[in-house]
Amino acid sequence: MDIYGGLEAGGTKFVCAIGTGPDDLERSVFPTTSPEETIARTISFFRDRPPLRGLGIASFGPVGLDPRSETYGYITSTPKAGWANTDVAGELGRALGVRVGFDTDVNAAALAESRWGSARGLDDVVYLTVGTGIGGGALAGGKLVHGLVHPEMGHMRIPHDRATDPFPGVCPYHGDCLEGLACGPSIEQRWGKRAENLPADHPAWRLESRYLAAGLVNIVCTLSPRRIIMGGGVMEQEHLFPLIREELAALLHGYVSAPVIGPPALGNNTGVLGAIALAMAG
Amino acid sequence: MDIYGGLEAGGTKFVCAIGTGPDDLERSVFPTTSPEETIARTISFFRDRPPLRGLGIASFGPVGLDPRSETYGYITSTPKAGWANTDVAGELGRALGVRVGFDTDVNAAALAESRWGSARGLDDVVYLTVGTGIGGGALAGGKLVHGLVHPEMGHMRIPHDRATDPFPGVCPYHGDCLEGLACGPSIEQRWGKRAENLPADHPAWRLESRYLAAGLVNIVCTLSPRRIIMGGGVMEQEHLFPLIREELAALLHGYVSAPVIGPPALGNNTGVLGAIALAMAG
Repeated sequence: MDIYGGLEAGGTKFVCAIGTGPDDLERSVFPTTSPEETIARTISFFRDRPPLRGLGIASFGPVGLDPRSETYGYITSTPKAGWANTDVAGELGRALGVRVGFDTDVNAAALAESRWGSARGLDDVVYLTVGTGIGGGALAGGKLVHGLVHPEMGHMRIPHDRATDPFPGVCPYHGDCLEGLACGPSIEQRWGKRAENLPADHPAWRLESRYLAAGLVNIVCTLSPRRIIMGGGVMEQEHLFPLIREELAALLHGYVSAPVIGPPALGNNTGVLGAIALAMAG
Repeated sequence: MDIYGGLEAGGTKFVCAIGTGPDDLERSVFPTTSPEETIARTISFFRDRPPLRGLGIASFGPVGLDPRSETYGYITSTPKAGWANTDVAGELGRALGVRVGFDTDVNAAALAESRWGSARGLDDVVYLTVGTGIGGGALAGGKLVHGLVHPEMGHMRIPHDRATDPFPGVCPYHGDCLEGLACGPSIEQRWGKRAENLPADHPAWRLESRYLAAGLVNIVCTLSPRRIIMGGGVMEQEHLFPLIREELAALLHGYVSAPVIGPPALGNNTGVLGAIALAMAG
């Protein structure tokens, strides 16, 4: 049987796995340190295992996805120290002598959920992660959305009523973009407590659900997905889901139907399974 | 040679044409009255001409685009009197005995520009029309975006600072969505003059370009197009283009690259050529 390799290259940890799907994953997790050390550890994980039919990489970004570009397969302009302009796909492909599929972590997560998870069989799917940052990936017409760069959903602009919420937002580029207003660190800075320490009846959650719903309106109005999957640390507060659905319906106001909104069915394995799916698709 | 038929079904006028592209169009335009009368006139236009290899319909919406749905080919929930639940594609296909390609007017316009116009050869393109309303169509990975419904870009939510612009917006569903703040009628109601009668140095245009640029940010962050084509009556004010590019660059703030923004190369024929392109693709 063919074995595939998957790497979820995250800003805080790397998840390596081999397998063919959710039921036969063998995985290993280690912290993201310098590119040299982290990539060497990745190579060593895969070298110690049976030869791969293909390797998929689901990476933090921004990344280069245009095969005609010199930076294809690179992590490009990331602010993460040491990682800008790192040829992740090239280095791993050469070291392991294997064909590499490469995409953003969130595009890969959308692919994994459409293959094995809550969006099985759907061609139009969005995966939105709400954690340290906010990022989104999308499958449109069965293909991952690339284009000029790739989706950067966290940086959409949404209404921000400074009279009711004077908090200026935490995004270093845009201040009060969606990520600036609704990522985990913005909750912590606005309310002085980490999200997981705020009780379910705290007003933080109604405000959070309004911002996230405004972001979802813009996703609905552009990509028209059949399902939106919301993951990431902040979304582990499951009481957010009904609030978000309520706010989204209020904002759409019957003009367009809301897609189904729910958590990833693949849980913590969504990212690395997305990498495996990229390996299989390549 | 094969001849294709195209119908641009608009809320105020129908444009019928036969041909194979921009260089051999024969067209006829008549006002949109009742569905019975307008569809009869359309049938009569095509019956008087050589048999068609295919017919494309680029329609105002919302429309049914899911071939598995009973309302495929319909204009569905439009507020336009008499036109809700009209089986445009079915009626024309049966009357003319021809295969029909069907999509939104703005998706078809994106397709036309990617085939013959300013986005030739590009797979990731957005067409945004700014006129009586605001609507957007998109090609992602070479395919027109459908999904749960189809894009409804005019109804995105964007920042609206009521301190500097107390105007509440004209959208009957959402008030100050993008369309509510930036369509032609909103300009007229806010400033008491029609857009074409406002001088190029009027503050209306700076405000207009800010709202449109905020909408473009959200398009860039979700669909990542390589080119955004802006048409419609309001965009005939060509001095808007440099203002919009300036505001878009300021809003993106170097975080992601801005795509090229420009007018349609096919001018008034973009819509009906989109219909011809749908006929050829079908």
